[in-house]
Amino acid sequence: MTRLASPPQVLLDALYSPVREELARAEQVFREQLQSDHPFVDELVSYGCLLGGKRLRPALLLLAAKAAGRIMREHYTLAAVVEMIHTATLVHDDVLDDAETRRHLATVNARWDNEAAVLLGDFLFTHAFFLASTTGSTTACRLIGQATNRVCEGEIKQKGSRGNLDLTEQEYFQIVEGKTAALTECSCRLGALFAGADDDATRRLSEYGRQLGIAFQIADDLLDVVGEQGVVGKTLGTDLEKQKPTLPLIRTLQLCTEEERQMIADLFFTDSEDRAGRLLPLLEKYDAIEYARQTAQRFVDDARQQISGLAPSPARDTLLAMAEFVVQRSN
Amino acid sequence: MTRLASPPQVLLDALYSPVREELARAEQVFREQLQSDHPFVDELVSYGCLLGGKRLRPALLLLAAKAAGRIMREHYTLAAVVEMIHTATLVHDDVLDDAETRRHLATVNARWDNEAAVLLGDFLFTHAFFLASTTGSTTACRLIGQATNRVCEGEIKQKGSRGNLDLTEQEYFQIVEGKTAALTECSCRLGALFAGADDDATRRLSEYGRQLGIAFQIADDLLDVVGEQGVVGKTLGTDLEKQKPTLPLIRTLQLCTEEERQMIADLFFTDSEDRAGRLLPLLEKYDAIEYARQTAQRFVDDARQQISGLAPSPARDTLLAMAEFVVQRSN
Repeated sequence: MTRLASPPQVLLDALYSPVREELARAEQVFREQLQSDHPFVDELVSYGCLLGGKRLRPALLLLAAKAAGRIMREHYTLAAVVEMIHTATLVHDDVLDDAETRRHLATVNARWDNEAAVLLGDFLFTHAFFLASTTGSTTACRLIGQATNRVCEGEIKQKGSRGNLDLTEQEYFQIVEGKTAALTECSCRLGALFAGADDDATRRLSEYGRQLGIAFQIADDLLDVVGEQGVVGKTLGTDLEKQKPTLPLIRTLQLCTEEERQMIADLFFTDSEDRAGRLLPLLEKYDAIEYARQTAQRFVDDARQQISGLAPSPARDTLLAMAEFVVQRSN
Repeated sequence: MTRLASPPQVLLDALYSPVREELARAEQVFREQLQSDHPFVDELVSYGCLLGGKRLRPALLLLAAKAAGRIMREHYTLAAVVEMIHTATLVHDDVLDDAETRRHLATVNARWDNEAAVLLGDFLFTHAFFLASTTGSTTACRLIGQATNRVCEGEIKQKGSRGNLDLTEQEYFQIVEGKTAALTECSCRLGALFAGADDDATRRLSEYGRQLGIAFQIADDLLDVVGEQGVVGKTLGTDLEKQKPTLPLIRTLQLCTEEERQMIADLFFTDSEDRAGRLLPLLEKYDAIEYARQTAQRFVDDARQQISGLAPSPARDTLLAMAEFVVQRSN
């Protein structure tokens, strides 16, 4: 069985090194903005901020800026904005998935309740929009609003596809483009735009962000199938439990016999024990895990291709390496 | 027992008459913006839009604009924005309150589930922010972002105050200023600003919106205690069930004996039948319903006072009448 390798935290730190100081400054904006005098608001928000983790989107934004030009004041604000939006979606996702742990911590819904998680997510979304407006740029507000709306639309489409064993690869990619790639694309676009990049560089960096986002989501869906819960640090097997068809399953359904399809439907629609364990042999029979891994790799290769023509710089090289990293991660 | 009178829909229609056409145009923007090619997205969003109802915030925005100057293109967009945000908060509120009906319709969480309601609310919030940015005004984006964030903060504070029998009137008003008054204030401010009102008129109309919002919320809290479910068209008694202290209860707790306080605590913290019915005699004993009604009326009077000095116009007169209306409504 394919197991995803686990790149250590030091690798992540090394990857971010061309923007280490800038990331720290964006982190400071993020935390300062979310402080509150009200004890319960402060407690909830501080806890929520712990759940984010990898700071992938701020890193993408700052690296895109540095690969395309110079980091400006607006970049710090916008890096905090994209992380705030990402955190909001995580907190709401954990409600939708009834998830209990994330990054080895209890989720907001598990520690408090769904109500706290809904309100915290709303608070983060709305604060992010306010913060975006402080750049004085309606372009920033528009791109952030649009990308976030596409994230939500992707999530609604995914909900509409629950239990749909006929979901096509194309429909799966439409969902992924919204729920994940819209925000990574937007992060790279904002980085490039505010660094004064020309149209071609902005387009290339945005496209890099989009394809990296798709690769990232395929890898994330794979983790839900083949990851080890203790390593990943969040509740796994939720896609199957929530009847969300992801790429390995869609691939298997394309190739399997009518009998096997019936077996998958039974696993999908009845609440049996160890569904994931019982599904895996079928996914392996049709090389569906490997197929998904290779598909993710194709998006990685395309993402790298987009930016390979940019002027060489440590930031560009990091973006090239990060594209590889997102499909090799295990958490 | 005080019963709130029920102003018929025709009264509402008459009130809005100075901006009837403008409201219809804003409604068109609202609906067009939320159309989707994806069947499930479209179904969910269309249903959610039915739950809004009174269109109070767009009406305030357009009336403030007309009372202060001329209605501009941006006003239609912003009227749709404030209604979208209001609808988002309603849809999420119904999740928080486990409410089953609103405006005589099943809530989104009741008809689908909490997940659908969380996603629909997020979709509406984010679309509203995108739409605000299309005005090309960062001031609009900032005011909308800020007001919406204050709404969420108010809701979190309210959650933090659950079961707190020591909540003061001042703390209650802080919650209400956020969760309700921030958006009515913002609606009036945007109306005035984009009509080119001077600083004094903008300040007066904003303050009118704030005080009207507080009065509105006190009346809404009163309905939860003394309203008739069949007339109001939404689940009642949820404040008590959710252990939210509102003004009549806070007033009673200020005045009652230690023994009565203990009785209230028992009603609050044990899941007994007909809690509202058992609490009412105590509220009446201390004239707490009447006290809350009079407090709401004071905010109404102050709101009217703010705008009484504006140049006379049908729009200003409607705003004066609306302030009375919000405390007399029964749904």
